[in-house]
Amino acid sequence: MTKVKRTSKVMFDRIALIGIGLIGSSISHACRRAGIAGEIVGSARTPATVETAVKLDLISEGYVTAAEAVEDADLVILCTPVGLCGPIAKEISRNLKPGAILTDVGSVKAAIVRDVAPHVPEGVHFVPGHPIAGTEQSGPEAGFAELFDGRWCILTPEPHTDGKVVEKLTAFWEALGSKVEIMTPEHHDLVLAITSHVPHLIAYNIVNTAAHLERVADREVIKFSAGGFRDFTRIAASDPTMWRDVFLNNKEAVLDMLGRFTEDLTALQRAIRFGDGDMLFRTFSEARTIRRGIIQAGQDTAAPDFGRPHTSEPGLAADKKKS
Amino acid sequence: MTKVKRTSKVMFDRIALIGIGLIGSSISHACRRAGIAGEIVGSARTPATVETAVKLDLISEGYVTAAEAVEDADLVILCTPVGLCGPIAKEISRNLKPGAILTDVGSVKAAIVRDVAPHVPEGVHFVPGHPIAGTEQSGPEAGFAELFDGRWCILTPEPHTDGKVVEKLTAFWEALGSKVEIMTPEHHDLVLAITSHVPHLIAYNIVNTAAHLERVADREVIKFSAGGFRDFTRIAASDPTMWRDVFLNNKEAVLDMLGRFTEDLTALQRAIRFGDGDMLFRTFSEARTIRRGIIQAGQDTAAPDFGRPHTSEPGLAADKKKS
Repeated sequence: MTKVKRTSKVMFDRIALIGIGLIGSSISHACRRAGIAGEIVGSARTPATVETAVKLDLISEGYVTAAEAVEDADLVILCTPVGLCGPIAKEISRNLKPGAILTDVGSVKAAIVRDVAPHVPEGVHFVPGHPIAGTEQSGPEAGFAELFDGRWCILTPEPHTDGKVVEKLTAFWEALGSKVEIMTPEHHDLVLAITSHVPHLIAYNIVNTAAHLERVADREVIKFSAGGFRDFTRIAASDPTMWRDVFLNNKEAVLDMLGRFTEDLTALQRAIRFGDGDMLFRTFSEARTIRRGIIQAGQDTAAPDFGRPHTSEPGLAADKKKS
Repeated sequence: MTKVKRTSKVMFDRIALIGIGLIGSSISHACRRAGIAGEIVGSARTPATVETAVKLDLISEGYVTAAEAVEDADLVILCTPVGLCGPIAKEISRNLKPGAILTDVGSVKAAIVRDVAPHVPEGVHFVPGHPIAGTEQSGPEAGFAELFDGRWCILTPEPHTDGKVVEKLTAFWEALGSKVEIMTPEHHDLVLAITSHVPHLIAYNIVNTAAHLERVADREVIKFSAGGFRDFTRIAASDPTMWRDVFLNNKEAVLDMLGRFTEDLTALQRAIRFGDGDMLFRTFSEARTIRRGIIQAGQDTAAPDFGRPHTSEPGLAADKKKS
């Protein structure tokens, strides 16, 4: 297991964040906590985001264009939806400092290599990356320093990439609290299809199904959501642009995993139809093992109900005051 | 909105819990908190469960058979998996006290009416019920007094049921912290199929799919589960017996909702295949509205990531000590 390193040594004199949403702002917080960044600058498509980022001291200088932001930066991190990485790489190509490291945080990797690599000039080191961390919230206000603590960050360097560069980026993510794993872009996309992309798709889907029923009202779905449904709505509240881009850019692996999911679901459906209780019991029992593994690996809390508060909930508190 | 009532007036002199798992034990805790029960007694199939329940003071007297436990009880609550309710109703039929209220907490209602009602003797009031609350944990140690706070409890009385009895059971659940809604068993089963049963089925299913892939190892699924997958594993860790019985006893509504889910998923799958980003974006955007509604209704926490702890996580803490 990778150890989490804490250091106050500046690792990069100037870091440029291209895009300052949940991940970009969390990187800034975590860099400050670790004391590893000289200066953090950044750009965002929306001027209001740049303004907020400066106001929150996430960046010391804000730029409207990515090309300006990357000038003289030692580390450039693309923190935009996946679909924008290609165009931005093209835009910043001439402005990247020789010797700089260019990386990203996108949830797909093969498409990033396809779109970004052709624009990376000689002398700039491109190492795609993906921190497996997030919440359902978006924007520069959503970030916090602890987001990456104990979470994995996957790097997918190309075979010809300088080992020292990969080491340096690994040390960077470890300083942010992450553990780092190296794999190929293709394997990353397959692993993430099942651990993240398909889960998001089916979460979005069941929320959508529930919202368009004729015989069950939306208000009933909302009222009685504590029976399980509400667990799905959290990840279905994630940023729609980001997720559209993920599915457009990891088509094959997602369709592959979705095929498996549907095949398995059809088998369960058939067991229900024909009353095969043994098959259902067997399938349901096995699922507990995976949950235990996740908790043991420190990737989820062992507290029941995710540790949701079971007292002083807003609705109830209001009621209590009245009665 | 139903107000939560707090009272210390004894509402039932003797309550019998048949089955003392998560729900049974939580009812006991919540009754004690509210001071509404004279004596709480109970039975469980497993002698060890009865022993634990007595030791934890969940019940003052424990019985090996349900027939003994219900004697002289004013309120009998069936807290077993749904499949056992019919046989138990038959077993206790002759021992139920005239004037007693018999209820249950099962996640399906039409099948409970079908299986239990024929065994209810003249003079005993049968009102099926279902508190929409739970965690992924099971057993007598899993319960806590706050489980029902702010959650809905659905009662499905038959048309001929005495209104005063329904009122009394309503007051009981309100004293436990719940809000109460009345509906028909058939509508209950339809609403729960989409808000609880199908979500559990697809959670069980994706965990099962992930566990049987050839190209992605189980340890990778576990390591990188923070990308979304882990949200599903929580409800997939629920009691397999309980859930087997739910699916065997709400077949039609589940198959109906599952059909809608699959139809919608196929449409999303097709949008991915043909790169229809607009359709994906539209679907994903709508999902946020439902999430907001659930939070506003006090049915989930507004804290990002369900309020999961983002510091001092077990895995990380261990690492920190080492470094």
